[in-house]
Amino acid sequence: MLFMVRMQVSLPADLDPVRREELVAAERDYSQGLQRAGKIAAIWRVSGQFANYCLFDVDSHEELHECVSGLPMFAFISTQVEALSRHPNAVDRDS
Amino acid sequence: MLFMVRMQVSLPADLDPVRREELVAAERDYSQGLQRAGKIAAIWRVSGQFANYCLFDVDSHEELHECVSGLPMFAFISTQVEALSRHPNAVDRDS
Amino acid sequence: MLFMVRMQVSLPADLDPVRREELVAAERDYSQGLQRAGKIAAIWRVSGQFANYCLFDVDSHEELHECVSGLPMFAFISTQVEALSRHPNAVDRDS
Amino acid sequence: MLFMVRMQVSLPADLDPVRREELVAAERDYSQGLQRAGKIAAIWRVSGQFANYCLFDVDSHEELHECVSGLPMFAFISTQVEALSRHPNAVDRDS
Amino acid sequence: MLFMVRMQVSLPADLDPVRREELVAAERDYSQGLQRAGKIAAIWRVSGQFANYCLFDVDSHEELHECVSGLPMFAFISTQVEALSRHPNAVDRDS
Amino acid sequence: MLFMVRMQVSLPADLDPVRREELVAAERDYSQGLQRAGKIAAIWRVSGQFANYCLFDVDSHEELHECVSGLPMFAFISTQVEALSRHPNAVDRDS
Amino acid sequence: MLFMVRMQVSLPADLDPVRREELVAAERDYSQGLQRAGKIAAIWRVSGQFANYCLFDVDSHEELHECVSGLPMFAFISTQVEALSRHPNAVDRDS
Amino acid sequence: MLFMVRMQVSLPADLDPVRREELVAAERDYSQGLQRAGKIAAIWRVSGQFANYCLFDVDSHEELHECVSGLPMFAFISTQVEALSRHPNAVDRDS
Amino acid sequence: MLFMVRMQVSLPADLDPVRREELVAAERDYSQGLQRAGKIAAIWRVSGQFANYCLFDVDSHEELHECVSGLPMFAFISTQVEALSRHPNAVDRDS
Amino acid sequence: MLFMVRMQVSLPADLDPVRREELVAAERDYSQGLQRAGKIAAIWRVSGQFANYCLFDVDSHEELHECVSGLPMFAFISTQVEALSRHPNAVDRDS
Repeated sequence: MLFMVRMQVSLPADLDPVRREELVAAERDYSQGLQRAGKIAAIWRVSGQFANYCLFDVDSHEELHECVSGLPMFAFISTQVEALSRHPNAVDRDS
Repeated sequence: MLFMVRMQVSLPADLDPVRREELVAAERDYSQGLQRAGKIAAIWRVSGQFANYCLFDVDSHEELHECVSGLPMFAFISTQVEALSRHPNAVDRDS
Repeated sequence: MLFMVRMQVSLPADLDPVRREELVAAERDYSQGLQRAGKIAAIWRVSGQFANYCLFDVDSHEELHECVSGLPMFAFISTQVEALSRHPNAVDRDS
Repeated sequence: MLFMVRMQVSLPADLDPVRREELVAAERDYSQGLQRAGKIAAIWRVSGQFANYCLFDVDSHEELHECVSGLPMFAFISTQVEALSRHPNAVDRDS
Repeated sequence: MLFMVRMQVSLPADLDPVRREELVAAERDYSQGLQRAGKIAAIWRVSGQFANYCLFDVDSHEELHECVSGLPMFAFISTQVEALSRHPNAVDRDS
Repeated sequence: MLFMVRMQVSLPADLDPVRREELVAAERDYSQGLQRAGKIAAIWRVSGQFANYCLFDVDSHEELHECVSGLPMFAFISTQVEALSRHPNAVDRDS
Repeated sequence: MLFMVRMQVSLPADLDPVRREELVAAERDYSQGLQRAGKIAAIWRVSGQFANYCLFDVDSHEELHECVSGLPMFAFISTQVEALSRHPNAVDRDS
Repeated sequence: MLFMVRMQVSLPADLDPVRREELVAAERDYSQGLQRAGKIAAIWRVSGQFANYCLFDVDSHEELHECVSGLPMFAFISTQVEALSRHPNAVDRDS
Repeated sequence: MLFMVRMQVSLPADLDPVRREELVAAERDYSQGLQRAGKIAAIWRVSGQFANYCLFDVDSHEELHECVSGLPMFAFISTQVEALSRHPNAVDRDS
Repeated sequence: MLFMVRMQVSLPADLDPVRREELVAAERDYSQGLQRAGKIAAIWRVSGQFANYCLFDVDSHEELHECVSGLPMFAFISTQVEALSRHPNAVDRDS
């Protein structure tokens, strides 16, 4: 099942640079792990903001929460979550 | 270039049913035309709302405006538009 | 899977009284049908408002949308939808 | 009498990990105590957020305040409170 | 039990003047009936707005909803409802 | 003249406990002094929030400001202030 | 006593032109009457909007409400009202 | 002096098509007149919305209001107005 | 040219008392200097808030910015700025 | 392609003055570099606020993000981004 999650990140400006790099690296690893596992189907940067859209494809609401709350930057992220369903006008791309 | 557009539709409750069906049909045709032309890369229904997320892939800002303002329901739609760029953590799915 | 949906209803003040009664009756039938089918697990009136909280228990995001958009009053309702998961502090009531 | 309370938690990102664990544990004990006493009739996690919906069943407005303000994390929680009443469309599940 | 209800009234500017007077008169009768019954403990006009604060003293959440939704102008009123409890700093005026 | 003031209090979670108790005690003394002087005509706790409604009865706008800005917790309080006047539907309780 | 009132006017675009002119003329007469009576101490147009700031100098909250609710365009106006008091830094211009 | 004005246009969906075309044509003429007179220094469409940014270069606040309120579509437009001044980092392009 | 500026001040609650007094004194001197120079035409306290309305009368947008950004408390102030023009209904007080 | 970006800057009031000057200087150099490279087509100060409008002219959404996120003050800036296209009423200034 699909969810569109918009994440706004607010790292403190005075965060220790080493800690910051660690966080960024951990976030990349974590995110790429979820992408390879197919849990994150797509991710886009919002141009001009420290924000992103993340399309989740998960098996349950519990799994969505586990994926999102496990983000290394979760404490710095504000999320908007919307459940998606198939749009009646969507063209079947595989047919 | 990519844009994430969230559309909230507000068809008047007292819209003539025939006019309503015509609008819905015209919207479907228009939307599917843009999908087949690759201008709409994906479209999802927001569950529980008369709303959708629409991922546009266009050649210019002018083309985005032409696509969106050409929607048969445009007069009834409120849009939020965000320009997207590649996310640094995105996994290259084709490699 | 569970969703908490808050619905704010805005029936026009000048709605024809007969049409209004029909809508209210149709809404009751529809809502009770979903309750009996277990799709609406609980429903509460927000005191002092023409609004309610509705706890949906559905099989998919598509089914949620079908249930909500099928409401006879859907054209007059503004919804807020949040996906729920089990709370880590929840006591297991059946054990 | 019933209240729907949505709680958004904002633990500081730099909270001492030991203090954090203590808080989480104290919150669990407190919440489960209220659940066992029947004061919290249900609790759900909002998927993708450090937030929850909590359905309170209390004897008075004073008791609601006592329950909520006694939460170990109260200083970090922002609440929205809505008084509930029986919905006219609710099906009597016990009959 | 006490509730503070702020009501913002939006009568249509083109409402038939006779209908308007009827509504205003019916609202006065209804409001004064609730005041005399002790259900409305106090009511104040918000200066400079077609709005008021209404302090309800009711026996249940159901009664609050019955009182508010029974207002002749209810279809034109937007409400904010907050449950009140005794303030720890309140001086006991009768002792 | 009457004012309805809603106060939302945000004491820092890491406030020194001794300082906190001092503030709470000073606030109680100050508030009760204003109540005894008739400047605060009524005060209610908003159930489930660190907030209150305070009905001021003062002689001037200057006096209102003096009363509110003199609150020991003023630096931690966000206020909404609305001037009240007699409601045309109010029943004269003393006649 | 002083109040700053911001008024946002929303005349319907399809208002009958004769009715519109009548309203505008009635508003002018009413406003100038209040200015000459000293009840409106100053009035400014917000550049680029159908809006204004109006500084009222009235004897009571009741008088403020009478002045504002008596505006011929009151049904089309949304107001924000703030009670003013002397600023501690204000220079006494008459001394 | 410069102003940045964002205009959001809300033409009614059921506007008579002839009236609509007249409005659009009148708006174009009016806007181009102001551009040729140098009062509108630049104008951009917001992609995906019936909205625009308009950079005004006027001689007074009165002239700004005259220009904006004279728009044939003014009754359908909601504006946000911000006064601009030279930015300290701006490079002098003519030197 | 006139501007209405609403300023909301947020001095940190833990500001060093000496620094606070210095700031308040510097703000008073600065404000009174602008008043004597005729740049601030009027200033009012918003009753019940650490906020004010300030009516500026300046020669340019640059001067407005210079005046406002030069406030000793500028780093703690959030501003809303609206350009004013003569209101068509304003009575000429000197004639 | 053009973007209108509104930037609101929130430098901490207690920022070390030397660090502050360095930031301001770095921001100036960076901004002027982008202006000379034609990436920032125009920049204006919002009068009365620590804010600006910045008109970007970039080759891609990626470049926009690179320009904005590279701002030395980026961690202290909140942005609103809108994609622009040619306005149908725009007069061709070069013809």
